[in-house]
Amino acid sequence: MAKTEHHEPTVAVRLDYADRPAALPEIIAAVASAGGTLRTLSTVRRWNDEAGVALVEVELEVSGLSETDVTTMLAAVPSLRGCRLTQALDKVFGKRLIVVGGGAQIAQAVLGAVSEADRHNLRGEKISVDTIPLVGEANLAAAVRAVADLDRARALLLAGSIMGGEITKAVRELQAVGIPVISLNMVGSVPDVADLVVTDPVQAGTMAVMGIADTAKFDFARQKGRRY
Amino acid sequence: MAKTEHHEPTVAVRLDYADRPAALPEIIAAVASAGGTLRTLSTVRRWNDEAGVALVEVELEVSGLSETDVTTMLAAVPSLRGCRLTQALDKVFGKRLIVVGGGAQIAQAVLGAVSEADRHNLRGEKISVDTIPLVGEANLAAAVRAVADLDRARALLLAGSIMGGEITKAVRELQAVGIPVISLNMVGSVPDVADLVVTDPVQAGTMAVMGIADTAKFDFARQKGRRY
Repeated sequence: MAKTEHHEPTVAVRLDYADRPAALPEIIAAVASAGGTLRTLSTVRRWNDEAGVALVEVELEVSGLSETDVTTMLAAVPSLRGCRLTQALDKVFGKRLIVVGGGAQIAQAVLGAVSEADRHNLRGEKISVDTIPLVGEANLAAAVRAVADLDRARALLLAGSIMGGEITKAVRELQAVGIPVISLNMVGSVPDVADLVVTDPVQAGTMAVMGIADTAKFDFARQKGRRY
Repeated sequence: MAKTEHHEPTVAVRLDYADRPAALPEIIAAVASAGGTLRTLSTVRRWNDEAGVALVEVELEVSGLSETDVTTMLAAVPSLRGCRLTQALDKVFGKRLIVVGGGAQIAQAVLGAVSEADRHNLRGEKISVDTIPLVGEANLAAAVRAVADLDRARALLLAGSIMGGEITKAVRELQAVGIPVISLNMVGSVPDVADLVVTDPVQAGTMAVMGIADTAKFDFARQKGRRY
């Protein structure tokens, strides 16, 4: 299945509203009637002292609407207490390399990944390196699967010493939705299904970021099955 | 303002639907009429070949509804092509320490942060360490501000060598929404306003994670103004 990167104009807003169940449907209906499409919504904060106020960050596709159109339209919604333009998270934090594995190995992978991301971010891209150290087949498989639900995640690097079984199954599922998986040269069946296997964790981090950067001549598809 | 961590039961689902502007409002209205509250929504993928199908991950607060109630209710929505339970991102990736600064210094901070997160994740918590290397006052200030829009972000570590001006202003704004900021011992006014200043980046990463972990006896509020 071909994956499309969407490039329609996006407006990002922070909204404060009275936290009642009908509030968000009101807001979203207002967006839709103005011709906008909701793409992301995060409830980032909830205050208890003002009889329940929630703060969400929303991102809307708005072809034909200016930022002013959007804030004016939203200001008319009854539940709304406040509305402020903010930056779309893609513009600030960009594409994400996710790194999952053991603490020490993640740290080495990050040495490479963050250094490479710095080189690309200095030239106008935005690439983040997001990590979580986990132990155990169930936890690792759950994290691999959940990468499919992470906004802006573009590749996964598995930085461990032994991974197989349910984790390998999860890797295949993730690859099926278009996210490449890089693996260290480790025990277990994950390296057999990975898009790329790299022994040195610093190089693995570096290559993983190169693979997702616009400005690098590195293509995971051409590396499939290779081991370094 | 007191910040409340919400603990209501959450159901997370992956939805595939025909990507028309009316689709999401339909889905959200169905959620609301069943008594659920939408808390997060991420458009994680959009396919071009099936005449426009979008895949979103949504998380709903559903006191009184079972997972089966939710999937049954959603399956009845016309635009929906598929609906599958998934894990709430908070359960998989947990609380986030955000690390922003220079590539080399982020890498050292992550050595400490990921090692400390590993210790807590081994004991049942979930803590992620999410990083982005950036250069320039405007980029850094934008990233500091945008941390307020990141779901599950609990603290920010600024791992650089010189930060002040607009970045310091952004730090104050972030602290005002309840997110503590740890800083390395660097040039500029950011250390003067930080919740905690730590000279060794490995220790800074370690302390930052300790501060957000449930199972550590470390309180940023008691460290305010301290330098290590």
